[in-house]
Amino acid sequence: MRQDHLITATQLSRDDIEAVLDRAREVAADPAAYANRHAGTVLALCFFEPSTRTRMSFDAAAKRLGIDTIDMGDVDSSSVSKGESLADTVRVIEGYADALVLRHPSEGAATLAAEFVDVPVINAGDGAGQHPSQTLLDLHTIRENHGLDDLTVGIMGDLKYGRTVHSLAAALTNFDVRQHFISPESLRLPRSVRFDLHETGAQVREHEELETVLDELDVLYVTRIQKERFPDENEYHRVAGEYRIDAETLAAADDDLTVMHPLPRVDEIAPDVDDTDHARYFEQAHNGIPVRMALLDTLLGGDEPGDEATTMGADHE
Amino acid sequence: MRQDHLITATQLSRDDIEAVLDRAREVAADPAAYANRHAGTVLALCFFEPSTRTRMSFDAAAKRLGIDTIDMGDVDSSSVSKGESLADTVRVIEGYADALVLRHPSEGAATLAAEFVDVPVINAGDGAGQHPSQTLLDLHTIRENHGLDDLTVGIMGDLKYGRTVHSLAAALTNFDVRQHFISPESLRLPRSVRFDLHETGAQVREHEELETVLDELDVLYVTRIQKERFPDENEYHRVAGEYRIDAETLAAADDDLTVMHPLPRVDEIAPDVDDTDHARYFEQAHNGIPVRMALLDTLLGGDEPGDEATTMGADHE
Amino acid sequence: MRQDHLITATQLSRDDIEAVLDRAREVAADPAAYANRHAGTVLALCFFEPSTRTRMSFDAAAKRLGIDTIDMGDVDSSSVSKGESLADTVRVIEGYADALVLRHPSEGAATLAAEFVDVPVINAGDGAGQHPSQTLLDLHTIRENHGLDDLTVGIMGDLKYGRTVHSLAAALTNFDVRQHFISPESLRLPRSVRFDLHETGAQVREHEELETVLDELDVLYVTRIQKERFPDENEYHRVAGEYRIDAETLAAADDDLTVMHPLPRVDEIAPDVDDTDHARYFEQAHNGIPVRMALLDTLLGGDEPGDEATTMGADHE
Repeated sequence: MRQDHLITATQLSRDDIEAVLDRAREVAADPAAYANRHAGTVLALCFFEPSTRTRMSFDAAAKRLGIDTIDMGDVDSSSVSKGESLADTVRVIEGYADALVLRHPSEGAATLAAEFVDVPVINAGDGAGQHPSQTLLDLHTIRENHGLDDLTVGIMGDLKYGRTVHSLAAALTNFDVRQHFISPESLRLPRSVRFDLHETGAQVREHEELETVLDELDVLYVTRIQKERFPDENEYHRVAGEYRIDAETLAAADDDLTVMHPLPRVDEIAPDVDDTDHARYFEQAHNGIPVRMALLDTLLGGDEPGDEATTMGADHE
Repeated sequence: MRQDHLITATQLSRDDIEAVLDRAREVAADPAAYANRHAGTVLALCFFEPSTRTRMSFDAAAKRLGIDTIDMGDVDSSSVSKGESLADTVRVIEGYADALVLRHPSEGAATLAAEFVDVPVINAGDGAGQHPSQTLLDLHTIRENHGLDDLTVGIMGDLKYGRTVHSLAAALTNFDVRQHFISPESLRLPRSVRFDLHETGAQVREHEELETVLDELDVLYVTRIQKERFPDENEYHRVAGEYRIDAETLAAADDDLTVMHPLPRVDEIAPDVDDTDHARYFEQAHNGIPVRMALLDTLLGGDEPGDEATTMGADHE
Repeated sequence: MRQDHLITATQLSRDDIEAVLDRAREVAADPAAYANRHAGTVLALCFFEPSTRTRMSFDAAAKRLGIDTIDMGDVDSSSVSKGESLADTVRVIEGYADALVLRHPSEGAATLAAEFVDVPVINAGDGAGQHPSQTLLDLHTIRENHGLDDLTVGIMGDLKYGRTVHSLAAALTNFDVRQHFISPESLRLPRSVRFDLHETGAQVREHEELETVLDELDVLYVTRIQKERFPDENEYHRVAGEYRIDAETLAAADDDLTVMHPLPRVDEIAPDVDDTDHARYFEQAHNGIPVRMALLDTLLGGDEPGDEATTMGADHE
């Protein structure tokens, strides 16, 4: 019945992505039709790192499909603190559940877990690695507001460390999207990410100032600049201030500009933006529900009776 | 479908209170009739402060109505520790759930949350502020044992800091109840609370010794005197000892006296009281289930098909 | 409807054990038949000590029977930290739930809890005391692989402190089993446990080296030797190394030898054993689901309509 794991967004083809987003659209249109679709199924939430929104979002998505969840709880309270290996932990838990959602501080953790278990594994963040369900809900938000072709997207803030950004940028190369990256010099996209984007033939440009491209953008995706990246606090405040947007900043933007943010935000989007039609970051967070429902439904075999099983492109060798 | 928020007990009218307590009585009489009444609904438990009994009680009440719950978990593990504002947190979570239960260390937190979200918010304690579902279960316990009119209630212990006490005292002014407050001088009701009670025309008297009024009481509501309120530990032990009751103390009371306590207790009620007919504090705790079921049912629109929507008096502007 | 508590494995008769294991076998054969058997029931998970696998296993087992669960959460966040007694805590929680699973650092905690509450209490570990559901799943694993009679079982590792070992050894005396205990001198079975085993007429022998008995064994039950038991770390490494098994060690064993471990393991079983047919420790962990489903089903009155209530031997006076 089940299809596969979801380990990384970069391995999803355009068809894979559109299949999940089409289903998310169906879920959003008629959630009641999905209410008991997976009754009798158990999903294990294994968060080796703290998480509020991702964990609650998967939890709610599961329950809205009739799936029960069991939660590993804090790592401090777990067998992990007794020295158990990740491979052992997931091999035990797969006996309790029909699928696993895994967040882990180490890059590659989800890949490793998928090698050891037979139930579907969903990567909910592995260190500086991937967070594919975030990417899918980002894409869904863009698609529902603008479609995914002939589009200009700006991505601003900390482009060096943000896994959300790297993952989204890679996924966007599947579509006809011009990508503009806006950041201070010190927080530019890593060389390897830039290289990979160029390899795909993506239309990519980098800027230090938002003003340069603001009026061309359909979507502005803002990320948080973290204080701990700066040795000098004054330098942090200067930089953070330059990449902060408010309602006034957006006066120069197209009326249809969609502002997104993976949240939590601290200061990078002023509260007065919340009241403008540009603000789509809460809608984006809420899209976690239909997108994760669609994802769980796909991985747990939610096809119509008689359909062929679909497979997702995630390579989990 | 939904009605409103529940932020404070002081804004509930006599009719509001009686409507919830009538429904709680129905729930208690026939819980099976409510078992699947809200299937497909999700309740978010957002406890920014630790809680065992309130959280578990809401969790169980929800599940006994067929409601699924999602839990924010500890604040240490949450986005809050990344500096997210309460307004942002609740605006994200409202996309996951059909109602929110909120406990927060800051007075006014629930009022603020209710301004930002559209789903019902239930205040489960906001600092030194309100805890209205506790008041409703206190009232239900009194009502089921004695009715709510022509009644003499004594409230004893820490009357200065206890939000439970202030809330209960205010709610009792809706009924024909004589209130006696028994405490050491240093832990008397705050001036503002006394003033508000007098404003309503309530029959209120204060005492330093339980003996003075014990034989007049229908209900004795005991609260814990906290060690940390006393700079001197000897002084604490002297005072706490004077306001401790045991089976012998209660020999002078009316046979029908009901002893209540919001729990947890430490030493203020001796274990030998547990075996007397006076002891109603475990019954009181258990009343959390039907009362919170009635409350959730009301807020989520549990009226019979065709009925007019009822509204609760909570002003959450 | 409900039957009783489950406090200790040592008080279960052979008939009690076989009744639960027969039901576990039925559950494993046809889990769907049990999927909604206890819908509308609530189980409270009260873990006063951290636990991953036991808590998740009970949680999943409950949900696979249609039982909802409520979780006490961490003790730090609970009323316990306000000085509430265990008796008060469980008396409050019994009003929220139809049964309690209790883990507590103090030996005898479950016995005490069972004296104060009317709903079934399941002991999920009380300090150095008992952990009967672990014993039942151990027995189920042995039974499904070899049956429970005319059997030779070796138990190796830390035999002094392991409650799992003491409980299993006692339970095995109900069956025709030869027991071999393999450990360093310093971690031998406690005198009192040896005495109790001899009293039952059990066939018991002790060894310092696995080689002595390996080829006679049907089952080898390995437990972890904990570093903290040794004042000297070198001594720990020497001893732990001697009682570590790998695929090469097992070359001398019978082809049908079943290797078990209560998990988590650290180093005592090498990963290369995982790929042999001997390895049954993940299967053993997974058996927690049908066994705990059978146990919950029994305690919550899962008999066919019209049947007499069965009782379990657990003496919880």
